[in-house]
Amino acid sequence: MKIFDVDGFPNPARVRIALAEKGATQDVEFHSVDVMGGEHRTAEFKAKNPDATVPYMELECGTCISQCTAITEYIDGAFEGPSLIGDTPKQRAITQMMNLRAESGLVDAVGAYFHNATPGLGPDLETNQNPEYGHAQETRAVNTMRYFDGVLANQDYLAGKAFSMADITAFAGLAFADFAKVVIPAELTHLKTWREKVSTRPSVSG
Amino acid sequence: MKIFDVDGFPNPARVRIALAEKGATQDVEFHSVDVMGGEHRTAEFKAKNPDATVPYMELECGTCISQCTAITEYIDGAFEGPSLIGDTPKQRAITQMMNLRAESGLVDAVGAYFHNATPGLGPDLETNQNPEYGHAQETRAVNTMRYFDGVLANQDYLAGKAFSMADITAFAGLAFADFAKVVIPAELTHLKTWREKVSTRPSVSG
Repeated sequence: MKIFDVDGFPNPARVRIALAEKGATQDVEFHSVDVMGGEHRTAEFKAKNPDATVPYMELECGTCISQCTAITEYIDGAFEGPSLIGDTPKQRAITQMMNLRAESGLVDAVGAYFHNATPGLGPDLETNQNPEYGHAQETRAVNTMRYFDGVLANQDYLAGKAFSMADITAFAGLAFADFAKVVIPAELTHLKTWREKVSTRPSVSG
Repeated sequence: MKIFDVDGFPNPARVRIALAEKGATQDVEFHSVDVMGGEHRTAEFKAKNPDATVPYMELECGTCISQCTAITEYIDGAFEGPSLIGDTPKQRAITQMMNLRAESGLVDAVGAYFHNATPGLGPDLETNQNPEYGHAQETRAVNTMRYFDGVLANQDYLAGKAFSMADITAFAGLAFADFAKVVIPAELTHLKTWREKVSTRPSVSG
């Protein structure tokens, strides 16, 4: 199985952490994509991944899967170990819900801010910026941080008692926020404590 | 189990179709939300569903689940019948990927167009419109239609041989597109044929 990504980018980090949690990193052949050179926007790349994003996964049979949640669903089901999504319909639903909140409200919101309201990846790649939209998404990202802080005041992890895909997504979102200079408000102590705890997991600290 | 929604809205339709596919409609108590009156933005509503969206589901234990994909994950696992997501890690990953493409590229894109570049739900509710962003999302919705047409040239349903959650999401997205007057290009015959076929399913036509 192959993963096409960029080491250090937020969405690739989500899949790399999931692989490490399942002890499956060594089963993967990583291929680096030249995002800064626009490789992800070539016809050849889009034939494999029409979303034009990293990461995507290519299985032995040739099937290509993009979208981190979908890739994580595969990894979670294909490898042994505690589930990153859940073992019951209720727990799986909670994880998917919190994961979507983290993806949309944090990873995507920070990304929209970064690509629309900052120089982003530079003038060659950022050709349709909309600063007003970008700044609204920055506000949304901070609101999501506040919401997660409230959740983490009452439970250990975003989807309940166990570490899950939702924690991975939110953790990657906060790393992206650091990079894009979207600051976590000082008073969000539950979020910061949770982040410290997640950062010590072997899957994250490497 | 209770569902709080608005009959006829695109995202509520996704959950209602999923329930009907699993033969579970009669197990649900539906409660109508006064979205036009702003009920979904009240503190009482947000305490149950911080996303401030319809639909959301409330289980007997009091747990509330929002986000259609998460609600569908629950319905699919909790009730009998053919899975709407898939029975193998690979099939589940493909369904999640195609579902995300339909959600982001069609439902959400049409929604962003509707709420930002048209009068939407009216001046009382549409307080932060961004027409430029809205029109870019209209283009994105049409591009997603073209992509799906290409997929459906080679297979019966969006995630392969079987009807799935991804078909439900795309079908609801096209209904929303009709409502928002985002027109399916005439040449997308595979998409139109698929839509006709889906519209005859008892879960949709019933």
